[in-house]
Amino acid sequence: MPGITGLLEYRKDSAEPIRNLTQLLLRGPSTLSEGERELIATVVSHNNQCRFCTAAHAAATEILLGECETSEKVKQDIETAPVSEKMKALLTIAKQVQQSGKSVTTESVDRAKNAGATDIEIHDTVLIAALFCLYNRYVDGLATVTPSDPDFYKTLGERIVHHGYTRNPEAYEQMKKNHP
Amino acid sequence: MPGITGLLEYRKDSAEPIRNLTQLLLRGPSTLSEGERELIATVVSHNNQCRFCTAAHAAATEILLGECETSEKVKQDIETAPVSEKMKALLTIAKQVQQSGKSVTTESVDRAKNAGATDIEIHDTVLIAALFCLYNRYVDGLATVTPSDPDFYKTLGERIVHHGYTRNPEAYEQMKKNHP
Repeated sequence: MPGITGLLEYRKDSAEPIRNLTQLLLRGPSTLSEGERELIATVVSHNNQCRFCTAAHAAATEILLGECETSEKVKQDIETAPVSEKMKALLTIAKQVQQSGKSVTTESVDRAKNAGATDIEIHDTVLIAALFCLYNRYVDGLATVTPSDPDFYKTLGERIVHHGYTRNPEAYEQMKKNHP
Repeated sequence: MPGITGLLEYRKDSAEPIRNLTQLLLRGPSTLSEGERELIATVVSHNNQCRFCTAAHAAATEILLGECETSEKVKQDIETAPVSEKMKALLTIAKQVQQSGKSVTTESVDRAKNAGATDIEIHDTVLIAALFCLYNRYVDGLATVTPSDPDFYKTLGERIVHHGYTRNPEAYEQMKKNHP
């Protein structure tokens, strides 16, 4: 099985917490939309040059936003992309996290706060970006298969949007119950 | 609370899968010793220049190995460090993952296999290294407090060695039961 799917099937016990963390951060309650959170995943994966994750999360973003322009422009240049000032600031932080935790500047955090970003939105942006630094390294470090057919990623994007990241809904619900 | 501790307390729901993944990879059943796995965490954190994580996992390594020399030498130069040829190969892969998933070479994987590393050991090395790329970015991206007192890290190392990474043993046991 290609990309991350093969890895998550190879070791299902370590896959469960990875899947649950992703579901919580990308689909759980948040003042950031699912499309905005997928955009963070796309920008980080693109800057890590992880073709599989970039294509998969760009596809999910496009379905959620209903258009292809935003994900494409955000990959090229955040500042001129058709997103809010708050999202520009958060995506800039995500891009800094992709380089290194130490690359995040107080200026970029202040910019996000001035644009109305809350502490939890900044926290989640950093953690989503860090999670995709894990994913991108896992996928490319073990040289998984990257399909070249764009239809593969459209189908994967549909699955991510409509079925999410968990494979064990009971375990996910239990995790949420532990932290009401 | 300093370092990762403050972050894991700030958002306890996302902390649970991160803690469980870490417990599984660093303390779960493995043909790599706990000391060897902490050494992977130390090398990655050191190369990400994350002072908090490097000091914490070097302290845990030193307690587990019963000496300070190995963790210190591995940070300086893997090839001349007093570890097995298999560990040199795995630590080299971990260091490549720290740079990027794409930096892992077939040569370094072949070297590990020739030195007796199994597929699951190589898999786990890549995933542990990727996990610490997440941790290091989380800790430094949100500019957590890094204590300078070495005694702080000795105490933290003792806690990591004797109490592990989970805070909800029931949730961890349930996760393990889901994947017998």
